[in-house]
This record gives sequence, structure tokens and C-alpha cells, in this order.
Amino acid sequence: MSSPKNQKIVVIGASAAGLKSAARAKRLMPEAQVTVLDERSFISYGACGLPYYLSGDVENLDKLRETVYGLIRDPDFFATVKGLDVHTGIRVVRFDPERKLVEAVNLKKDERPVFPYDKLVIATGARPRPLIGVQPGEACSFFHTPEEATALRKGLETGQISSVIVVGGGFIGVELAGAFSELWGCEVTVLEATDRLLPQLMDAEMSASIAGQMRRNRVEVHTGMPVTRASTEGGKALVAAGGKSFRADRVVVAVGVVPRISWALESGIETGPCGGVAVGERLETNLPDVFAAGDCVEVVHRLTGRPVLIPLGSLANRQGRVVGDNLAGKLTRFGPVAGSACVKIFDWNVATTGLSVVGAKQNGLRAKAIWGTFMDSAHYHPEHKQIFLKLVYEEGTRRLLGLQACGAGEVVKRVDVLASLLHREGTLEDLLELEFCYSPPYNAPLDPLHTLGCAALNQEESGIPGIRPDSSLANRYVLDVRTPEEITDEYPTPTGAVNIPLQELRSRVDELPQDEPLLIVCAMGTRSSEASRWLVSRGFTDVVYLAGGMNLRVQR
Amino acid sequence: MSSPKNQKIVVIGASAAGLKSAARAKRLMPEAQVTVLDERSFISYGACGLPYYLSGDVENLDKLRETVYGLIRDPDFFATVKGLDVHTGIRVVRFDPERKLVEAVNLKKDERPVFPYDKLVIATGARPRPLIGVQPGEACSFFHTPEEATALRKGLETGQISSVIVVGGGFIGVELAGAFSELWGCEVTVLEATDRLLPQLMDAEMSASIAGQMRRNRVEVHTGMPVTRASTEGGKALVAAGGKSFRADRVVVAVGVVPRISWALESGIETGPCGGVAVGERLETNLPDVFAAGDCVEVVHRLTGRPVLIPLGSLANRQGRVVGDNLAGKLTRFGPVAGSACVKIFDWNVATTGLSVVGAKQNGLRAKAIWGTFMDSAHYHPEHKQIFLKLVYEEGTRRLLGLQACGAGEVVKRVDVLASLLHREGTLEDLLELEFCYSPPYNAPLDPLHTLGCAALNQEESGIPGIRPDSSLANRYVLDVRTPEEITDEYPTPTGAVNIPLQELRSRVDELPQDEPLLIVCAMGTRSSEASRWLVSRGFTDVVYLAGGMNLRVQR
Repeated sequence: MSSPKNQKIVVIGASAAGLKSAARAKRLMPEAQVTVLDERSFISYGACGLPYYLSGDVENLDKLRETVYGLIRDPDFFATVKGLDVHTGIRVVRFDPERKLVEAVNLKKDERPVFPYDKLVIATGARPRPLIGVQPGEACSFFHTPEEATALRKGLETGQISSVIVVGGGFIGVELAGAFSELWGCEVTVLEATDRLLPQLMDAEMSASIAGQMRRNRVEVHTGMPVTRASTEGGKALVAAGGKSFRADRVVVAVGVVPRISWALESGIETGPCGGVAVGERLETNLPDVFAAGDCVEVVHRLTGRPVLIPLGSLANRQGRVVGDNLAGKLTRFGPVAGSACVKIFDWNVATTGLSVVGAKQNGLRAKAIWGTFMDSAHYHPEHKQIFLKLVYEEGTRRLLGLQACGAGEVVKRVDVLASLLHREGTLEDLLELEFCYSPPYNAPLDPLHTLGCAALNQEESGIPGIRPDSSLANRYVLDVRTPEEITDEYPTPTGAVNIPLQELRSRVDELPQDEPLLIVCAMGTRSSEASRWLVSRGFTDVVYLAGGMNLRVQR
Repeated sequence: MSSPKNQKIVVIGASAAGLKSAARAKRLMPEAQVTVLDERSFISYGACGLPYYLSGDVENLDKLRETVYGLIRDPDFFATVKGLDVHTGIRVVRFDPERKLVEAVNLKKDERPVFPYDKLVIATGARPRPLIGVQPGEACSFFHTPEEATALRKGLETGQISSVIVVGGGFIGVELAGAFSELWGCEVTVLEATDRLLPQLMDAEMSASIAGQMRRNRVEVHTGMPVTRASTEGGKALVAAGGKSFRADRVVVAVGVVPRISWALESGIETGPCGGVAVGERLETNLPDVFAAGDCVEVVHRLTGRPVLIPLGSLANRQGRVVGDNLAGKLTRFGPVAGSACVKIFDWNVATTGLSVVGAKQNGLRAKAIWGTFMDSAHYHPEHKQIFLKLVYEEGTRRLLGLQACGAGEVVKRVDVLASLLHREGTLEDLLELEFCYSPPYNAPLDPLHTLGCAALNQEESGIPGIRPDSSLANRYVLDVRTPEEITDEYPTPTGAVNIPLQELRSRVDELPQDEPLLIVCAMGTRSSEASRWLVSRGFTDVVYLAGGMNLRVQR
């Protein structure tokens, strides 16, 4: 066995996790011989940037593999700057954990090279989730490789593509919808198999706001539309879904990814319940001296303690450093993950962290929620914008479980801060202790998370619930406490609602029926909550309010 | 004594802390009689918005006291919406803690009303810090009241003011400089008594970047310039400072605030070492049933455990809720504060939290720092912008102490997230576990705080220091590892530096002198750090690198 200093390290996969592991190990052990193998020739590119290449925001694909100072990250770069041996066009077919050998095929020559290792890193990422009925071809493709992106961009530039069907309403699907639509003006139809967009991250009513945002930007959105066939017919795309057929110039399938690990199963690598490599805290696998990182591994969810697949570049990069440390004998752990993610949808920012209510219940947690509509900065500041938040917490313990956020204003900051509380098992009370920078261009004196935390605590303590923004308003006496000026075509009053502005409520309370269940609505959910509490103090017994207000409700 | 339910609560001061206390108490105890007293007639306005009224961003002063739905927050609003009795034009002169009486003067009539209370809240805020030699008059004013702001705005609108001297380089001072300059095009001179702008929050070298930003926007900045006289001469402003005299159309003095509490001292209220009301965790004072909140109280600093004055609207609002709870017999605490703050300076965002190195050392803490220059989002995304960060941590324990941030990109998010770590005694290692939403418009896969945390850990573990961005480069062999294309007039190479791009370093290392101390520089501090570590592994013994790189250094 080689001594640690000049050991041989072989890394399979030249993307974020693999190259980060390799570079970190080499930095810590300059004498080590670090080899990175990848079957592709175009490596180390920012795959998350592919939709931005498609949209035209990124000029050419090389930009995605350029350093901030303009060097292309090719094998020569890794050799001269990082001291790594990166071999492209090398497909690994198996490894032998006993003899510590990696067996590969050289795709450029008829050779079967073998790489001995002292330590091995598996960072082979993920591949598109296959979908039965999809026949890739001229007018039908996945969206995973630079080649696929290039073909689509050419079609857009030459005007051959002016209508597109996107199969899958996850993060990539909604990004693609915007990419095809904004600059290129394509007619875009999104087909999602489940009942909502972003099904992994959003509950139905928040997802409905996002569908609304897409439709307001002229994207056709169909949910509950499982695709049974997608193919090329006469050079155009033909898609069958939910008993209907759809036609367009192209169909792009983006229904998620699965770990690219089947090649290693016969070598004895163990996978977990989600099909990713099962790893321990140090990202070690079941095999001696074999580590794994990136989209091919399962991570532990911070809130459920269960293994999950969260294929994100942000995690892959952090895992790379952890593996690099451990290769060098430095004990470093990769902790559980809350799963923060964000996406731009036209002029909306969308971000989530932790569990949705649906996700929490699937994991046996008793989840409750509160919603709120807010301005993201001082409302008198000319650049303030509206945001919509849904906070998920555990009933009883008041432990924070997650946040879903969308709107034209700043939501990512709030989600990032909430994620930091999830990492320390924060509760609703902890929200009130958060310290946010305050100045009118950046915030209101109380951040939306403060106010939302208060609303959740009020809901718990007063027993007056804020009801879901898409609730039926039937079977209740609906009181709208907005000013008459606020009731507009864009923000109408619910059918049959009675309007008594909050500032007149104390003097006109006798107009309300004492014996009917009341539902109070306002614009953003603050006044209706306040009115509800006051009405309960006046003896009304069955009072609820519309959380997030009409401003959130009308986003659907 | 009244029963809790219908008790009499008197609140002195109708700004954020007072009105929030009052409204919260009334909400929890609808039977209570809650009276709020203020000597001013214009109440409940967003004082932090005054600079934005001056700048023209906010059309008129009423916008600062309007709710988000367009109602003016005057006494009638508080009566009808919140059920509070708000009396304006009432100046409280003393209170009797034995007999529980507040004695006041009615400024509108010749009356001396007396208000009995069961519980009292002192929320009288702060007043401008007086400065010897300042003679307020036609061309010389403070910037604290709506009247002062109105007079200045009129002078700008009528063209009477085209040059201004701002005395004080704190948050308000730098905000004012922008407000006078951006829309109105005034010639602005800032005179700061200490050696730097934002002296409470920034260390000298970060402050120098901010002075650079001001100067690039044509603001004249003089530090180390204590003003000894500011007055009106022939209708114009005359200022004497540091042995020089300055003339302009107006001089505005903004050298901070002091608690407005002297009126209450004879009633027996105790103040702390900083001159603010000394309060306990529940914001109770030394006197029975007397609470205090807002700019007039001292808070506990999260990192030093010592009392400090942090007069911020964000804290005042949070304190208001805590006092309201306690008035209603609900035990709620107000925790220690890290002191997050932010300000917009032309197109730069500036934010800080926790302690500066200077501040930490003044408090007996062994502080170290690391700097970094980053893009705030994926560098291939067209909207990425540059940011500069300085992280402060404790030597040995690696406990996080603070963050200073500035630049055209998103810095507030990073500061808000770091503040959340300060609240749980986070360490450098905790930075690596942070989870940030990632998508190219919002971030790089690794957030700047991850990379900065790694840089700090590398500094600790490798012993290779990142030196201050404004360090002298003399007495060292300076190696610039940027590409030749990066060396421009805007970002020049240090005098006498030798340029070997990082990608050539491994092959050209023999050109470096083995026996001289080396200083490595690059653009942002990443490559120079990497080069340093490799050079040390090659036997070079005295190697340092310029933290934050030339991009930060040239901001001065």
C-alpha cells in the first residue's frame, strides 16, 4: 500500500463533486497522484447554467466552463492550475474493490485502460429520469447535455422552433418555459403529471400561484397530465398526455434525474432506498477506501432524518470539499440537508426550504401552516415589491419545518435565513429573535419572517386560524375589511362579501350577525387577523380569516 | 389597584416602540385603557424614511405615516383601528412612581394634565447628539425632525441649495450625502471627526472602500476632521473643522443620537453606562410597573454581553411587542442583539453585523479577520455583481464575531444569514454547513460565505495568512498570479510586482527567489491563496497573500 503522502487517488466524474474532491485532496496532499476520469469531453461546466444558455442570457457554452478570470476549465487547466490528471473520453465500466483497480474503456481509441487506486471517489452524477413512451429524436429530446441544449438553441436562433411542449413542471421545466418564452417568444405548453407544478417543493395552493404567474406570462400550464407518448412526427413533436394530444415544433422532457450508479452495482457498491449511493457522514461508501459525492449519493434530510436524493450543484460542491478532506485523512462530516432551492420564473423569484405540508405529512409529521403577503422593503420606498410566504411548522412543538416563497420581491434572503434556523431545530419563537438589516430600500422595520412568526404564534395562542388562501368562502358570512378604494377588478371582493373597512368596524360591529360563522378577508392578511381577534373579544365565537389575504388568493 | 383586565396603561412616546407596545397590549387586553402621549403632532412616521423624502424617492412626508393600504396613522386612526387614546401636543415632564401618576403640559392649551397609570411605558426615543460649536439657524440644522427635512427639501426644490456640508460620516451622514447628490446634483462634502466613515461598524480598510465609493460618486470626504464650529454667515453655511474652513449653501449635522431620557431621571429611572434606560430581559426598568423600549434603552450585545445603545427602528418594533406582552402579564424576553445594519450608498449596498476587529479588541476579544471579493451570483449570469466581505472571528475558538460587506451586489442576505449564526455562537465550521438557495441568477454553487469560511479555516490550518487589502506591499517580493489580460489601468499590478499567471506557476516556479519573503496577489484572493499553499508545499517558507485581491484593494 502506498504511503498517504504519495497515494493514488482516482475520481470518477469530472463535474462539481468529483473535481472539487480531487482539487481539495491535491491541495492537502501535494505529493498525491490524483486522476480524474470522465467519458465526456466537455467537462466541469455549470450544468445549472444550461437553461440560461438556452434563454440567450449566456452567450455560448464555453462561458459555462470558464473561470471568473476567463480560463477554460479543460484538462490542461486542471493540470497546470490544480495539478490533476484529468482524462476525458474514458468510460469506467467497473472497479475491483479487492485489487483496487478501476477498469475503463477509452472511447477515442480501442483501449481498455486500468487505473490502480489507493482511494476511489465515485462522482458520476445523475442522468435524466427515463419516461416510458418518450422516443428521443429530431423533435423530441431531454434537456441534460450541452449537445441537447445546443440543438435547441440553434433551432431557436434559426426560427425553426416557435412552439414547444415542456414535459415536467419541476425546477428545470419551469426554467425552460421561461427560457423558450422570454427572449424567443415561443408558445410554450407545460405538461405536469402530478396535480401541481414544483410538486416536490410546494403545496398545491402556493403552486397554484406559480401556475398563475406562468399563465400571466402566456405559458399554457396543464397539471394532472401524465405523458404517455412523446415522439417526432413529420419533423414536429407529437405528445399524448391525459387522453389528449399536443403538437409543437419541439418537445423537451425534463422529469427529473436519477443517480448514475447502475454501472457500479456489480462492483459491490450499496445503494439506499432512493437508488443513490448509501454514504456515511464522511461520505464513505460500504466499500473500503471508496467515497462518493454529488448527485449520485443519498443525503440525510435535516427534518425527517431519512435518506433523500437532492441533486443540487450547491450540495455537490460542499460534498467535494468533505471528500477531499477525508481522502487526506482529515475527519470532516457532511451534515443533514434541508433542501433549499430557488428558481426565477419570469419576474418572480421562487424559493423553498425544508418540508411542504404534504411532504411533512408523508413523513408522519403533524404539520400546520400560516401564509402571509408582504412588501419586501419599506412600502413607501419606490422599489418595494410584493412577496407571498407560507411557513410550515409542527403542531404542538412549534418546530419550524419549512418555508415556501414567491413573488416579484426578495424571497431568497428569507428562505436562506429560515434554512439556517432549520439547521438548529428552530421554533416559531426563534423567528422573533432574528435580526435583519433594516433600511428602507431593503426591508420594513419588521421583516416578513418576524410578522409571519407572530401570525403563527397568534394562531396558536388565540385559536383563531388563518385559513388557506384558496379555501372555499361558501357557508360563511364573509366580511371584507379593506377600504373601498382597495377593492378593484384586479383585487375584487369575494362574491356576497360585506365591506366594512377595519377603521369602521368598532362603530359598525352591530351590523354583523352574532350567530353565523364569520370569515374575515383583507388585502394581505394582517387586518383580517386583527379584526378576527377583536371580534372574538367581542363575543363572536366562530371566526376565521383568509391568511395571505386577497392579494395572495388572486394569484391563482 | 385596577384589575389586570381593565387596567390603565400609559405610554410615553408615539413612535415605533411606544405604539407597538400600546397596540399589542390592547390586542391582548381589549378591556384595558391604553393612552399614548407625545409632544409632537406628527407621529408614527417612518423616521428612517426621512433621507428618502429628502432624496425625492418619497414624494411627501405623509407617505411616511401611511399604512400600506393608504390610511394616515394619526390619533383618529389609532382610535378607530387600534382602540388607543393617542394624545399629541402633550409633553410629559415627570412621573411619580409612588402615586403612579404622569404629569404633563398641554402644549396647545395652558393646561397641566395628569394621567394615572397602572403600568407605564417609556418610549421617548432619542434626540440628536449635541455638538459644541453648532449654532442651528437658517443655513445650519440637524437632520432629525420632519420640519428639518422639509426645510431642506424646499431649499433643494427651489434651487437655493446646491452645495452642502454634512457633518458626520455615520449611517445618516452617508445616506444624506447620497440624498443631496443623486437627484439634486448638489456638491456634497462629508466631514467625519474620526479616522473613517461608519466608525462604529467598519474597520478602517473596509471604510476606505466606502470612502472610495463616495468619491467615485463625486462626494468630497474628509476624515479626521472634527468640527469646531458650524453656523450661518450671510445666509450661507460656514464650518470650521480640523483647522480649515468650509463654505456651502447649507450644513447638516448628523453625528448620532442620544437617549431622550433626562426628563425622567428625577422620577428615579435608572440609566446604564451608555446613558440609556437600564432594562432587564422583559424590558422592565428599576421602577415597579414601568417598562421602557426603543431608542432610549440600552440593549445587551450578543457577543460582548455588555450594554450598548443600538438605536434602530427594527429593534424598537420588536421591543414594542415584548413590552406589550409583558404589560398583559405574558412573560416574553428581548434577547441580546448583534447589531445588524445596512445602508445604500449610491449603487452600493453596505451591511454589517456583530463586531468589527477594532470593536472586538476594544471589548478584550482576540479578533482575526479574512477578506474576500466575490461575484454575488453565477459569474456567467449577465446580472452578476461584485461584493467585498470581511469576516471577523475569534482567534483560537474560531467563534464568529462579525461581518462587514459592501459592493454593487447582494450583501444584505449574507449579513442576515451570518447574524443568525452569531445568535447561536456559530464558528467558522458552521459556515460550511450553511444551506443557500442556488440558481444562477441568485448565487454561485458555493455561497461567498462558504468560500470565506474555507479561506478562514485555510488560514488557521495552513498558517498562511491573508493580509489586509490595504497592507503595504513593500519589503516583499510581490508575485501577481493574474493573467496579463486582467492587469488593466483600473486594476493595475502593484509597482515592482512580477507577473506569473497561476497556470504557469508550476512550470516557472524556478524564477522565484527561494530566500525572499513572498507576497502573492490576484484579483479576488482565491488564486493567490491557492498559489501560496502550493509554494509553501514546495519549500517556500515566508509566504502571504493579499486577501480580497486587487479588486478590493483598488476600491480605496
